[in-house]
Amino acid sequence: MLRVEDLDTPAVIVFLDRLEANIARVQSLIARQGIGNRPHIKTHKIPAIAQMQMQAGAVGLTCQKLGELEVFVDAGVCDDYLLTYNIIGPHKTDRLMRLAGRVKRLAVVADNDVVLRGLSEAGLRHSRDIPLLIECDTGFGRNGVQSPEAALDLARLALKLPRIAFEGLMMFPNTAPHTHEFFTRAVKLFREAGIKLPVVSGGGTPALNSLAEFPMMTEHRAGTYVYNDVMMVHSGVASWQDCALQVRATVVSRPSPARAVLDCGSKVLTSDQYYVQHYGRLADYPGAVISALSEEHAIVDLTAVSKRPKIGEVVNVIPNHCCSVSNMNDEVHGVRNGVVELTWPVAARGKVR
Amino acid sequence: MLRVEDLDTPAVIVFLDRLEANIARVQSLIARQGIGNRPHIKTHKIPAIAQMQMQAGAVGLTCQKLGELEVFVDAGVCDDYLLTYNIIGPHKTDRLMRLAGRVKRLAVVADNDVVLRGLSEAGLRHSRDIPLLIECDTGFGRNGVQSPEAALDLARLALKLPRIAFEGLMMFPNTAPHTHEFFTRAVKLFREAGIKLPVVSGGGTPALNSLAEFPMMTEHRAGTYVYNDVMMVHSGVASWQDCALQVRATVVSRPSPARAVLDCGSKVLTSDQYYVQHYGRLADYPGAVISALSEEHAIVDLTAVSKRPKIGEVVNVIPNHCCSVSNMNDEVHGVRNGVVELTWPVAARGKVR
Repeated sequence: MLRVEDLDTPAVIVFLDRLEANIARVQSLIARQGIGNRPHIKTHKIPAIAQMQMQAGAVGLTCQKLGELEVFVDAGVCDDYLLTYNIIGPHKTDRLMRLAGRVKRLAVVADNDVVLRGLSEAGLRHSRDIPLLIECDTGFGRNGVQSPEAALDLARLALKLPRIAFEGLMMFPNTAPHTHEFFTRAVKLFREAGIKLPVVSGGGTPALNSLAEFPMMTEHRAGTYVYNDVMMVHSGVASWQDCALQVRATVVSRPSPARAVLDCGSKVLTSDQYYVQHYGRLADYPGAVISALSEEHAIVDLTAVSKRPKIGEVVNVIPNHCCSVSNMNDEVHGVRNGVVELTWPVAARGKVR
Repeated sequence: MLRVEDLDTPAVIVFLDRLEANIARVQSLIARQGIGNRPHIKTHKIPAIAQMQMQAGAVGLTCQKLGELEVFVDAGVCDDYLLTYNIIGPHKTDRLMRLAGRVKRLAVVADNDVVLRGLSEAGLRHSRDIPLLIECDTGFGRNGVQSPEAALDLARLALKLPRIAFEGLMMFPNTAPHTHEFFTRAVKLFREAGIKLPVVSGGGTPALNSLAEFPMMTEHRAGTYVYNDVMMVHSGVASWQDCALQVRATVVSRPSPARAVLDCGSKVLTSDQYYVQHYGRLADYPGAVISALSEEHAIVDLTAVSKRPKIGEVVNVIPNHCCSVSNMNDEVHGVRNGVVELTWPVAARGKVR
């Protein structure tokens, strides 16, 4: 029997009780709104966890990259996927079409006519209809058409192009500033144009607190909720006790009274900060924050901590951004009551194409 | 014959002419100081490139983690290593001792007595002397003893402990603010105490501009110089034409006139910023900077660019921090005159233990 203390550090662990509770809680939260739960696998990248999400009642899964989709389709956990990425070029559209032939539904997005025409041509090459959502930018500043009118224009092109089965709209995240206004206008515009919107797909874990404000959404895509992290606690959607993924790390140095150095650097935690001031927190030392990272060192600022960890001690780090931690590590260990119950390979780690 | 245009994106490429020139230039720069060149493999993590560094005249290699060392010792590229990390616990010190038995010299560092005593015990267990350097913090604020006096105290302990072969001092990087003062005093202190310092090991690629200012150093450890990146150009030690590693990425969206979105996110480039304001630059669009990253998207700010890239176009990104890019990707492609000459697996990628 392997105990958590037996794991060499740095090691990524997942508290299984918390993981199960997170899956159940969010499933029931989304179901209460009468919409579909379509979890994003980017957070865990592990088919066995997707299986748990499907068994809890998810309607399907969301992937971001073809390489992720290939891993999950191979694992056979689901037959209804949404790929939320502009797929460009014959090499990638051919991969998409081969995957589409292996599941019941594989929808994809587009936010411009180049992508849309490429998909249509791939559909023609493979004699296959492609379910399609138009991606909308409601203020997040990433991908997406910039207005409901532009969404309507692109939808009209989608309706004209062969082998494109227009299904609706998609955006990320609901918490972007203009989401409500954008989608209220979009729904009205499409209704006036006589174009049905069977799918309106919203997303984001922080948006779970405000699902009721977006009655036009038909499904929700959240990823981070399975594990949670410092960002999710800061956003008010999770507590420290909901943080299922943590990194066990050893204090390798205490160069000065207020400084500890851990053996988990940016190669384990990533440099992701977003709206968090630091790079992670020590679960059992409230006030201890990771103030700097280099590739193999985490610098912990112990100024606010009276009882301080010793050299050789193993501590648990709550990362800023758990999705990136998944991507940095080849495996995670499932832990319950101090026992390592299982070790999952992060099967879709590093799938950047 | 595979051409660079045939690579699906995102793809990490290395311009082989630049790589070879970087290796030759820095070897001769360090040799001119009459000190040893001990490159850090963390930048490339590829035995074949370490072989090129050794053939150019390096005296040995530097690794940061046991897992990296295992890959390089297996590859047999060198028989003189320095492991610049505090190694703690019997699991890791046993791995260290097994590696030491496979090469001519494997030196390691310590900055505290817990690490030092653990190494001594491992030396006793394995009947093996351990060449040891004391790590010094000269203002970088990471690992290391805080003063020359503390270095001397720890050296005295090292000299007393069985199986520890004290060899000298190590620090990173030379450009830390108190390096000159710290080492000038340390050399004097150790001389007065009658303790020899056969090795004084400095490091860092930006420090290559000022090697002559540190006559007490006997060897130099630089890593980033093989590839270079935005940080190295900002530090004045490389030009854009020295940046050997670049990321080929496709423009997947142009949501607004001044915004392009690339298919290389933080999963390819990492969020590393350090002293750079942005997350990378477009090699062929001067003024185009990556202003934001999410996991699969790079947002390019084209405000300062008049001729702007189109959807579907492939661009070359110069990353902020090439070492982290190596760690994110399973392979890099060696390119010369537009032809992909070879593909190297990043053999020591993700070795965090």
